[in-house]
Amino acid sequence: MADMVSQSCELCTGPGGRVLWQSACCRVVRVDDADYPGFCRVIWNAHVREMTDLDAVDRDTLMRVVFAVEAAVRQLFAPDKINLASFGNMVPHLHWHVIPRWADDRHFPEPIWGRVQREDRPPRPVVDDAALIRALAHLE
Amino acid sequence: MADMVSQSCELCTGPGGRVLWQSACCRVVRVDDADYPGFCRVIWNAHVREMTDLDAVDRDTLMRVVFAVEAAVRQLFAPDKINLASFGNMVPHLHWHVIPRWADDRHFPEPIWGRVQREDRPPRPVVDDAALIRALAHLE
Repeated sequence: MADMVSQSCELCTGPGGRVLWQSACCRVVRVDDADYPGFCRVIWNAHVREMTDLDAVDRDTLMRVVFAVEAAVRQLFAPDKINLASFGNMVPHLHWHVIPRWADDRHFPEPIWGRVQREDRPPRPVVDDAALIRALAHLE
Repeated sequence: MADMVSQSCELCTGPGGRVLWQSACCRVVRVDDADYPGFCRVIWNAHVREMTDLDAVDRDTLMRVVFAVEAAVRQLFAPDKINLASFGNMVPHLHWHVIPRWADDRHFPEPIWGRVQREDRPPRPVVDDAALIRALAHLE
């Protein structure tokens, strides 16, 4: 399915962020968000809409990458919580958000798409893309 | 891990909704939300915080149920999009939201935790718990 492409889709025509890891099926990109250092997305390369549009093997492949990213983000950023989400309402091209959350972050305990809870910005771990890349390098 | 229980956790002390299907590991409950008929949650029975706190076999078991619920909700409610999310910021007990979305729903294209986009409520498919239960009955 790697040749399924939509010319009007920003995740078909561009990488969607700085690529940290990639395979023939999918890629991991880092999201540039000062409130959520380590926020990554895992993007299926082909233009597929829903998880259940993938077969079981591809679903497992994608989720293994999502959970590897979760493990790397926990190891490097030690957040209080991990949030995982796959929406695709605006860009219906399968992608997962892997978001480190802190109890004093901008939206906690709301999802990051919810109401802002506080405006102060406590110091956060510095993002080190090289460390993230190393933490994902074992993935096949 | 089925004996891991927190007495202060609402998903340890109660079912968390009307139970449609359950196993020794997890359960599927329906969420009562008139805006999102068919909205279900998949709740891991033990008090575990993150997906990467489960071993790989348990992660696969849970995700297979999540995707079976997605398939059942698509089949029964024909939404325009499925949203999947695991947050646990308020209740740090592993659970997945499986949410049918329509292009004219209350929050679309925002996540349902985002800003309300419209107040009118178009007619939605009627929830039939018996049909959901039948659609999940093949799960092991």
